[in-house]
Amino acid sequence: MTKGSLYIISGPSGAGKGTVYDEVVARRPSIKKSISVTTRAPREGEIDGIHYYFKTMEEYQEMIAHGEFLETAEVYCNCYGTPKAPVLEMLDKGYDVMFEIDIHGAKNIKKQYPDAIAIFLMTPSFEILEERLRARGTESEDSIRRRLRAAKGELSKYKMFDYIVFNDNKEKAIDEVVSIIDAEKRKIKNNIEEINLILESKKK
Amino acid sequence: MTKGSLYIISGPSGAGKGTVYDEVVARRPSIKKSISVTTRAPREGEIDGIHYYFKTMEEYQEMIAHGEFLETAEVYCNCYGTPKAPVLEMLDKGYDVMFEIDIHGAKNIKKQYPDAIAIFLMTPSFEILEERLRARGTESEDSIRRRLRAAKGELSKYKMFDYIVFNDNKEKAIDEVVSIIDAEKRKIKNNIEEINLILESKKK
Repeated sequence: MTKGSLYIISGPSGAGKGTVYDEVVARRPSIKKSISVTTRAPREGEIDGIHYYFKTMEEYQEMIAHGEFLETAEVYCNCYGTPKAPVLEMLDKGYDVMFEIDIHGAKNIKKQYPDAIAIFLMTPSFEILEERLRARGTESEDSIRRRLRAAKGELSKYKMFDYIVFNDNKEKAIDEVVSIIDAEKRKIKNNIEEINLILESKKK
Repeated sequence: MTKGSLYIISGPSGAGKGTVYDEVVARRPSIKKSISVTTRAPREGEIDGIHYYFKTMEEYQEMIAHGEFLETAEVYCNCYGTPKAPVLEMLDKGYDVMFEIDIHGAKNIKKQYPDAIAIFLMTPSFEILEERLRARGTESEDSIRRRLRAAKGELSKYKMFDYIVFNDNKEKAIDEVVSIIDAEKRKIKNNIEEINLILESKKK
């Protein structure tokens, strides 16, 4: 059985990663979400075990000590990590796994899995990014400035990504990410078994 | 301006290249067709300058002598070639160019343009390919056998292609080729100018 593919959606805070991620996974049920572990406090509506596994810093440190993470990173004073076992299991079963993850996590996953398909989600400009961060109404002025600086640093690392999607229109962005997934499925390397089955059948 | 991309749709006779090619180009007007030159007789409904440029063997030889071809090949005792100038001009203007071409032509184009995106269109089995060739009603038994042998040889060269699409359902096959094109547009290397414009804008 062909192993599943690993997808990464990354990009600056405010680019719309979460919404695009949720919609893409809803449209392509073969894709499984990876649920991250975090030490940050749940936002309103976030449920433990669905959006994140929420852990205390002590529990998190213990998981690190036991080597249970595929990647782990500290962002804005909180830890985020990807538990290794469920991801490897899903890929072996032929499912695809998709991560919505910050650029540090993306980099670490790419290091361990160079075949991971990394998609950078970006607004069409920094001005629009700023507007969206302000529209959240949850960010302090300091936090907005920090995130904008971070966004510039993140975009300048574009070379570590395979694809870039500009989220100027949510539906278009979702369509484009879905296209990327559908196209990846058609890559020769993901169809070697099917091709060999056809070639073998001719020998009979 | 970002240069256009060069797409190749290839695959055995009977896989449905022509239909898929026409529909894909109709759905994505940014893609221009490359019109081949051939020495074979026009089939019913084929128009000179639209489906092919029909030439005599003498005219064709003269074009070869003048180096006017991007690639040229002999298939089933007829010559097929791609005139160079119009393709290069369209790519420079930022248009994509798509070829529907046999495997010999695909190989020659890939040799000259390693960045060309080559898509292999195949039926889900050789049995279905045979059925489709018979359904044409235009092929002799000898021709069918020759084409089936050729198809096996073509599929076994799958490694020179980037993608494979199984044409078990015409609409699905068209959707998948369109996905490949849409995904290629999102590749980082095709968005360097857009990314740099955003990065530059931040400096102001």
